[in-house]
Amino acid sequence: MRNTQVCLASRPSGIPQAENFTIRQVDVPSLRDGQFLVRNDFLSVEPAMRGWVSAVANYATPVGIGEVMRSFAAGEIVASRHPQFAVGDKVMGMLGWQDYAVAEPASVTRTVRETDLPLSLSLGVLGLNGLTAYFELLDLGEPKPGDTVVVSTAAGAVGSAVGQIAKLCGCRTIGIAGGAAKCQSLIDRFGYDAAVDYKAADFKERLAAACSRGVDVCFDNTAGPISDAVLTHLAVGARIVVCGTASVPSWDPPPTGPRIERHILVKRARMSGLLIFDYAHRYKEAVARLAEWVRAGRLRYREDVLDGIEACPGAIAQLYRGENSGKLLVRLRHG
Amino acid sequence: MRNTQVCLASRPSGIPQAENFTIRQVDVPSLRDGQFLVRNDFLSVEPAMRGWVSAVANYATPVGIGEVMRSFAAGEIVASRHPQFAVGDKVMGMLGWQDYAVAEPASVTRTVRETDLPLSLSLGVLGLNGLTAYFELLDLGEPKPGDTVVVSTAAGAVGSAVGQIAKLCGCRTIGIAGGAAKCQSLIDRFGYDAAVDYKAADFKERLAAACSRGVDVCFDNTAGPISDAVLTHLAVGARIVVCGTASVPSWDPPPTGPRIERHILVKRARMSGLLIFDYAHRYKEAVARLAEWVRAGRLRYREDVLDGIEACPGAIAQLYRGENSGKLLVRLRHG
Repeated sequence: MRNTQVCLASRPSGIPQAENFTIRQVDVPSLRDGQFLVRNDFLSVEPAMRGWVSAVANYATPVGIGEVMRSFAAGEIVASRHPQFAVGDKVMGMLGWQDYAVAEPASVTRTVRETDLPLSLSLGVLGLNGLTAYFELLDLGEPKPGDTVVVSTAAGAVGSAVGQIAKLCGCRTIGIAGGAAKCQSLIDRFGYDAAVDYKAADFKERLAAACSRGVDVCFDNTAGPISDAVLTHLAVGARIVVCGTASVPSWDPPPTGPRIERHILVKRARMSGLLIFDYAHRYKEAVARLAEWVRAGRLRYREDVLDGIEACPGAIAQLYRGENSGKLLVRLRHG
Repeated sequence: MRNTQVCLASRPSGIPQAENFTIRQVDVPSLRDGQFLVRNDFLSVEPAMRGWVSAVANYATPVGIGEVMRSFAAGEIVASRHPQFAVGDKVMGMLGWQDYAVAEPASVTRTVRETDLPLSLSLGVLGLNGLTAYFELLDLGEPKPGDTVVVSTAAGAVGSAVGQIAKLCGCRTIGIAGGAAKCQSLIDRFGYDAAVDYKAADFKERLAAACSRGVDVCFDNTAGPISDAVLTHLAVGARIVVCGTASVPSWDPPPTGPRIERHILVKRARMSGLLIFDYAHRYKEAVARLAEWVRAGRLRYREDVLDGIEACPGAIAQLYRGENSGKLLVRLRHG
C-alpha cells in the first residue's frame, strides 16, 4: 500500500512557506507488535508548526530535514497489532502530514469517544484548540462572574472558544479581530458583548471605550501592538494569559516592545503561559465538558477545510496571513 | 511646640532631587479626640517615593505641592487622646518626613511589639522591606527546596532579605549586585551561594555559568538589562517576581525592552507583582517569623543611617544612585 507524505525540505526563516516542503510517495511498512495503522481523515494546521520546524530551542526537538511534517491528525485504525487499539477505533494524535500513520500508543493524544460528533472536531474545538482555550482561560485566567475578558484573535479557533467559555462563566467578553466582517461574526456567531476592529484607525479609542471598567483577563495570541494596547487597561489583579505570539514574525533576535513591569506591579497583575501537553491527565474532563457545550449549542465553532494533501505545504503561511477564520484543516479523501 | 517638616516644593521629572523639597517650621496643633502625637525617631527613604510624588497614576494620590512628604516613620507616642494608643507605645506608620506627626489609627501600619529589637528595624527588615521580601518571595515566588533563586539588587534592603529567606527555604541563591565589594558582601554577609557583578564586562557569561541549571525564581527589582539577561535562563515553570523597576528613569513614555512573551510561553512561566498593603492582615504572622529569624542570627540586615532631617531632601536621589548598601534611614535627634 502506498502512502503520501508531506516532508520538511528546508528550514524556513520565519513563517514556513510552501517551498519548505516536498510531497513524496512511499510504501506503508508492515506493522510490528504493539503498532497499529491509522488512515488519517483530517490533518491539522497549527500556528505552533512554526516553532516545530524552527531550529531555535522550543518545547520539542525540531522536525528534521527530510522527515514527515509533525502534525496532529484524526483518523480510523485500519490494522492493529496492539490489544488496546482495535480496527475501527477513531483516534487523534501526532500522526503527521500523511495519508497513513504507523502509530504506537505514544502517538495517540486520545481515542475519540464522542462519535456522535464529527471526527474533525477532535482537531479543533474538542482538540488542542478547545483544550487550550479551556485550561488557559480557566486555570490561568481564573475568570469570575462579572469580569471583563478581552480576547485577541477572537474569531480564531482558540479565541472563539475562549470568548464563549468566558461567557459561560458569566464574564463580559470583548473580542478583538481584524475587519468589519470578522468583528460582526464575533457578536453574531460567538456571542461577544463587544467587538473591536484592530484595523480601524481609531482602534485604541474604541478599545478604551470597550474596556472602561478595566480588563480582568487579557487572553492574548499576538504579543504585539494589540496586546500592548490592552495592557494599558488592566484592572487591579488582572490575569494576562499568553497563548501565542502571532504578531512576531521572528524571535531571533527577540523584538522589542514597551516594558510591562510597571503594569504588573501597579495592577498587581500576573502574566503566565502553559503547555497544553502538561494537562494530558485532565483532557478527559475537559473534552467531556466541551462536548456537552457543543451538543447544547453553547459552544460554536468554525472550520476552514482544504481538500487534499497537496494543500498542506502552503497551509501554515495561509494561517499566518489571517485569511482563515476558523480551525484550519486538510481533509483527505480515501477510496 | 515647634515641628520641622520636609515638604514637596515642585514635582520632579524622574527621580526626585533635593531641590524638589523645602524644609519648614510650623507649630504642632493640639490634638482632637481620637488623635495622638508621635515623636518620630526614624524616617524612611524608599524607592517607591518616586511614584508617590509623580503625577502619573499610581497606587495612591500623588503628594500635593506644599504637603509634607509622605513617608514611613517610626517613633514613640508622646501624647494621646485615643484609648488604644498609649503614651510610650512605639508605632510605625505613614507619619511623614517630620519631627512630630499628629496621627490617627489609619496612619499606623503597626504597633511595634518586638521592643527587644531596635526600633529602626520596623522600617527595614521588620518593616515594608522585610514584609515585601517575605510575601513576594513566598507567595509569588513559591520557592521549593533545591530551586535556583536569582535576586537583583541583591544587597539592598529587600533583596538581601529575599536571598536569606530563600536560603532558609532550601534554595540555591544567586545574587546580582554592582561592584566587587557588594558582591563580596552578598557571599559573606547574606549567605548567597553565588554573586554576579553586573558591572563586570563578562556579566552575561558569569550569569550564564551561575544559572546553568536554569532559574526557578527570578526576583527582580530592576526592569532593565539585568532582568532581561536573567529571563534568558528561566527553567520550566519559573516564577518571575516584579518587585521594583529601579533601572527605569521614567515611565512616561514607557521604555522598550525585549518582549518576554516567548519566555512566558515556552517556559510555562509566570510573572507577577503584589501591593504589600493588600497583605496587611498577615503582617503580624510575617513580623513574628522575621523577628525570630533576626534574633537567631539567620536574617541579617544592613542600615545606612543619615543624621538629621536636613538629610531628607537629597536622600531619594542618593538611594537611586545606588551608593547606599542597606536600608536608608534618617535618624532624628530630639533633645
